[in-house]
Amino acid sequence: MSLAAHRAQHVRLAVEGAVAAITLDRPERKNPLTFDSYAELATIFRMAARDEQVRAFTIAGSGGNFCSGGDVHEIIGPLLERDTRGLMQFTAMTGELVKAMRACPQPIIAAVDGVAAGAGAIIAMAADLRLGTPRARTAFLFNRVGLAGCDMGACAILPRIIGQGRASELLYLGRSMSAEEGLAWGFFNALHAPEALAAEAARLAQEIADGPAFAHAMTKRMLQMEWAMSVEQAIEAEAVAQALCMTTQDFRRAYDAFVAKRRPEFEGN
Amino acid sequence: MSLAAHRAQHVRLAVEGAVAAITLDRPERKNPLTFDSYAELATIFRMAARDEQVRAFTIAGSGGNFCSGGDVHEIIGPLLERDTRGLMQFTAMTGELVKAMRACPQPIIAAVDGVAAGAGAIIAMAADLRLGTPRARTAFLFNRVGLAGCDMGACAILPRIIGQGRASELLYLGRSMSAEEGLAWGFFNALHAPEALAAEAARLAQEIADGPAFAHAMTKRMLQMEWAMSVEQAIEAEAVAQALCMTTQDFRRAYDAFVAKRRPEFEGN
Amino acid sequence: MSLAAHRAQHVRLAVEGAVAAITLDRPERKNPLTFDSYAELATIFRMAARDEQVRAFTIAGSGGNFCSGGDVHEIIGPLLERDTRGLMQFTAMTGELVKAMRACPQPIIAAVDGVAAGAGAIIAMAADLRLGTPRARTAFLFNRVGLAGCDMGACAILPRIIGQGRASELLYLGRSMSAEEGLAWGFFNALHAPEALAAEAARLAQEIADGPAFAHAMTKRMLQMEWAMSVEQAIEAEAVAQALCMTTQDFRRAYDAFVAKRRPEFEGN
Repeated sequence: MSLAAHRAQHVRLAVEGAVAAITLDRPERKNPLTFDSYAELATIFRMAARDEQVRAFTIAGSGGNFCSGGDVHEIIGPLLERDTRGLMQFTAMTGELVKAMRACPQPIIAAVDGVAAGAGAIIAMAADLRLGTPRARTAFLFNRVGLAGCDMGACAILPRIIGQGRASELLYLGRSMSAEEGLAWGFFNALHAPEALAAEAARLAQEIADGPAFAHAMTKRMLQMEWAMSVEQAIEAEAVAQALCMTTQDFRRAYDAFVAKRRPEFEGN
Repeated sequence: MSLAAHRAQHVRLAVEGAVAAITLDRPERKNPLTFDSYAELATIFRMAARDEQVRAFTIAGSGGNFCSGGDVHEIIGPLLERDTRGLMQFTAMTGELVKAMRACPQPIIAAVDGVAAGAGAIIAMAADLRLGTPRARTAFLFNRVGLAGCDMGACAILPRIIGQGRASELLYLGRSMSAEEGLAWGFFNALHAPEALAAEAARLAQEIADGPAFAHAMTKRMLQMEWAMSVEQAIEAEAVAQALCMTTQDFRRAYDAFVAKRRPEFEGN
Repeated sequence: MSLAAHRAQHVRLAVEGAVAAITLDRPERKNPLTFDSYAELATIFRMAARDEQVRAFTIAGSGGNFCSGGDVHEIIGPLLERDTRGLMQFTAMTGELVKAMRACPQPIIAAVDGVAAGAGAIIAMAADLRLGTPRARTAFLFNRVGLAGCDMGACAILPRIIGQGRASELLYLGRSMSAEEGLAWGFFNALHAPEALAAEAARLAQEIADGPAFAHAMTKRMLQMEWAMSVEQAIEAEAVAQALCMTTQDFRRAYDAFVAKRRPEFEGN
């Protein structure tokens, strides 16, 4: 089934043209995650690998906040009743969401206003690009609930985005990273006014969707694959990947457009 | 033996409650390291793995400087008389200090005032968090003594903290990184006035010591273990680690405190 | 053959003392790369591994620009006529240039004025240190020509220099990184006025050339080798590498100079 035809039940999903917009939509509680919404988000990103229409994602929260993370009453309370196998099922499911976000070929843009806490901060971190607002507060606050900072890949991914020392601080203290810090540290790619955020995220997603989709998917794949390769291995892997991209029609389309002094129209093949 | 009962001979060690404060204390020479103090520092951090009381470390220098590194007369001179095996014994010992700092479960806060040079800069780098003062000067000056920048893990660790380009500059030139650079680049987590530094480091250590110690140790362990993992491996490893943390009483204590609208009191189990 | 005696045909190569200066010199077209200049650059850096005189490189462009990348007419057009094997030969050759830059023992300083685009941006990225000017514009614009950002190691190397989020933005959007961004993000080590750039690059290269060349080569080697090592492996590898450096005469020279209160004169052995 295509994403455009998918009826999401626990988050909002709207596909317009080549951009799929996901909205976490329980604003009265700052859009917390539940067992159901975790699973549905992972399903959406896994479906994306086979979708022919969607070329970029945005993910945002409604009502001035991004996501308050795993709900205390709907997630943490029930977890306390689980046995070892049940706990592992939960952490495997939350990890699956990040794996699905990294494995889907479309770049994902997180639009972060207000609170992004716990798993909400993780979803922002696991996106490809991040836009924020001046009032965005991002908190990897797992220590505040008695847990470790190693949640859903944070100890590997966050240091690559903002550096090992800053990531360590956020993970040990659980304090909010301000929007200014997030911009200065490279967590946010840009900040926009809250009323402009949705439009800016949509514009950025459209810009990416207008690009060479096969090549973009390869960029995403290799940014992931080369994470723990040696420099030599990475160069070898890229030689193969880029040679493959050179066989696409989009490569020819760009050349033809350049010669004809017009803008290329990419078709993703 | 516990750290509280340990009589350090070549550095000062003071354990108050759950915080252990190490002071390099030869201020007349800017607190250089000697063969003895290297070994004693490593011993302290190795002891920490079995200590039941200490939950955070601070490390600082006395007299307005952090540490001037390996003493020219007490270390470099004697090294010139050593054979190959003797040289390797020295570099294995200095490496052992960094390994002990990374392996000890307690987060380590370096409080850097004045000079942090050579092995002194390395000790700051190998800590988990770093506070500085506006007059802190951090120099990985191995090239100045005819050696390589690859000392005690610097070529792996420094780029992860401040980026590959800046680390390359500091390691090739041996120049001092100013406090402002260190803050802007993510080496320092914050700067404080020299007269406030010790209190701020102690306060930060206390904040961490008040946190969930088992989970903090897991955070530190995973920040280390995931260094060269693929993203998928990291997510899988964290799923197991966090499930384990969910079996601790501190996880329940945080939930109970949240429901009762009070601050959790963590006990580290 | 030595670099000093080498007659470069497609780039300019000038060896003065211990510094080799490479200039991309087709200013009327912003110094594009061709099949020939790619191959010649790789040859020069491979020769450097056996050169006894050169201890540092600078690489720059003439006429106010660094390098406009692979020439559209001389490279992209012909690539469109190639079969799979021919494409792979090209990407293997461009990757070979970056491998040669990373494998040569001498630190390389890129001096970037004006445009650094595509493979030009890659060459800057693959250098050890980067100086820019306020008008430098660096664009990893592969997506603009229908290709992926995974070109010549970019998906592995760029994130280590400027962080994963910023690298992702540049690789997905192909937009220019401004000189200010490049400085703030750690891509550039410093900015200089265009008229001062060449002299500053030469000065920096001379400073490095005056250092302990054997140790510098080891620093470069280990910065590369430890890329995907665990922390423990890196520390072990450095213990061996630094012990080797301690057997050089430059280590003794530095000590003797210190005791005599004079500046050491390193000889690279």
